[in-house]
Amino acid sequence: MTEDCTQLKNSIIENFGTPCGVIDLDIVDSNIAKAQALCDAAGVANRPHIKTHKSPRLAALQIAAGAQGITCQKLGEAEVMANAGITDIIIATNLLGAARSGRLAELQKRVALKVCADNPVSLTEYAKAATQADRPLDVLIECDTGQQRAGVETPEEALALAELIKANPMLNLAGLLFYPPVDGWPQTQVFHDKVIDGLDKLGMHAGIVSTGGTPNFVNIDQLKGSTEHRAGTCIFNDRMMIEAGVATLDDCAFQVYTSVVSRGGEDRGILDAGSKTLTADTGGLDGYGLILEHPTARIHKFAEEHGFLDLRKCNHKPVVGDVVRVIPNHVCVAVNMIDQLVAVRGGQVVEIIPVAARGKLV
Amino acid sequence: MTEDCTQLKNSIIENFGTPCGVIDLDIVDSNIAKAQALCDAAGVANRPHIKTHKSPRLAALQIAAGAQGITCQKLGEAEVMANAGITDIIIATNLLGAARSGRLAELQKRVALKVCADNPVSLTEYAKAATQADRPLDVLIECDTGQQRAGVETPEEALALAELIKANPMLNLAGLLFYPPVDGWPQTQVFHDKVIDGLDKLGMHAGIVSTGGTPNFVNIDQLKGSTEHRAGTCIFNDRMMIEAGVATLDDCAFQVYTSVVSRGGEDRGILDAGSKTLTADTGGLDGYGLILEHPTARIHKFAEEHGFLDLRKCNHKPVVGDVVRVIPNHVCVAVNMIDQLVAVRGGQVVEIIPVAARGKLV
Repeated sequence: MTEDCTQLKNSIIENFGTPCGVIDLDIVDSNIAKAQALCDAAGVANRPHIKTHKSPRLAALQIAAGAQGITCQKLGEAEVMANAGITDIIIATNLLGAARSGRLAELQKRVALKVCADNPVSLTEYAKAATQADRPLDVLIECDTGQQRAGVETPEEALALAELIKANPMLNLAGLLFYPPVDGWPQTQVFHDKVIDGLDKLGMHAGIVSTGGTPNFVNIDQLKGSTEHRAGTCIFNDRMMIEAGVATLDDCAFQVYTSVVSRGGEDRGILDAGSKTLTADTGGLDGYGLILEHPTARIHKFAEEHGFLDLRKCNHKPVVGDVVRVIPNHVCVAVNMIDQLVAVRGGQVVEIIPVAARGKLV
Repeated sequence: MTEDCTQLKNSIIENFGTPCGVIDLDIVDSNIAKAQALCDAAGVANRPHIKTHKSPRLAALQIAAGAQGITCQKLGEAEVMANAGITDIIIATNLLGAARSGRLAELQKRVALKVCADNPVSLTEYAKAATQADRPLDVLIECDTGQQRAGVETPEEALALAELIKANPMLNLAGLLFYPPVDGWPQTQVFHDKVIDGLDKLGMHAGIVSTGGTPNFVNIDQLKGSTEHRAGTCIFNDRMMIEAGVATLDDCAFQVYTSVVSRGGEDRGILDAGSKTLTADTGGLDGYGLILEHPTARIHKFAEEHGFLDLRKCNHKPVVGDVVRVIPNHVCVAVNMIDQLVAVRGGQVVEIIPVAARGKLV
């Protein structure tokens, strides 16, 4: 991180300008290998979430390293990945807009999808789409064990959905989807066991028991019965993952190269990366990113195309024309702003990687 | 806003799914006409900022209504607009990354651009680009009169840049660019007058004196010497503009149609629009948008593809499968997430408008 990278900076600015989203493929390779090794050691399959990179090229690297399949959050993302030849896909959310638009049925005609539900309305729409596709749809029941995000909140609700799935010939129960709180794996085990018991009584089986989250790698072997883990952020990492203690600066593969375009007074500066580049997502942290060259400079505010610097704590202050590298707070939303990533290896630009599944609202 | 729009909702969801970015062209027309009328009444030219819509199609509507030219914030935006035949363009920022990448020179070869500077480094890069393009570049000096964004902070600094421009045969002084605070027009007048006096002594002339901002329409005739106004948000408006008192709900042309995809417990709900759709930009407001059907529901948190609802204040709560319409806090960053806008008129979908200049990092 601290090596002299003047040559690479010059290459980036001469060939692409700033701001520019850059990934280091050596770090990407290392991060992919680490995630796979953690899954292998725990005896669960690896199903990386592509929300972080949204790129079939990088998904292919994950699969080549041993991932069994992928996780998507949008039907549009699954369409892009299916078009690239990836077919083992969980869409880890209740699809309603995509189901009612006919696009779920269209994709299900081509690829046997696995989708999620936490309510009967989604099941009804899934059955319609499956009927239209003339192929039963695999459904995971999404279970909330404390995150207060999506998911049924009790084993009883999960079993009620299982009964609806059982009653519908166009739906198959594929399994259970969890995203446990980092400190909530014991309660997840209790929830899981009750559902599995209930399914037994219904004569049903959860083939997949999926857990999720990069910070949850520390718990990966803590759910008896789990079959796979979904993690997204670990391919690139970010300031949130550093703060969570699950990555170091050397594990951060994505950086925004940005120019200092203005200095107003002694203690102010302006980057050409604003909320339309780094996004206003703080991830609960102070400031909007870490500037590698000036770690004490604080990106304290954004305009759409400007990042405003508070330089009061900097002894060595940047000057206009400097190119600096920013590790974003939340890499998944930052990559989502960009149509292509500039990929480097050993300090050389080696490839341009399209963020092909970006901008898929549905 | 309160009319029954079930038919339109059904049409949106069946043809596009959710979430979906929708604009009402009748409101767009009315907003464009109002902005033009305000400029006309003040005797200044209208130079709308395309950052809000990023669409050559909508820029053409603004020009057809009387706008003299447009404002862009990125070179990449200007490239898209120039390719669509628009040639009177101010790029209202210090370009450094774009200048040093060669792209400024490439565009300057085709279109006589107007660019901005608040420092000598930008001027040096502009002169290089102009030399490469073999055509002098028109430069506006950006002046900060209180916003603490970009811009020189004193008339003396502005005049020092003017002298550098005068000394360089590849640069022309095009004028002065201001973005006054809403309550800062008197001090802007003082700053302006000092610079104009100094330019007189240098034998120089500011052909353009540009002011900016939708909330500044209330001040538009308050700077003696101004020649044009730049405003972006007014074409669509948003919750920030309502809060600022410069728009009403009926003036809001852009809505995100989103499905309620989950309900956890009595007081929670989840939309399929998260930070990758509405963005984490609060615009300083409480919550992340106004739900027209449930104005007392608060979008209190985002995941990337989920908006989390606090329904405690709702007597009439949404149910899973409902499609609701959200006015975002900050429309410019929300439109920037979308590759195309679904345009309606009289409750019918009439057109798909590409957000063609979206994602232009440089």
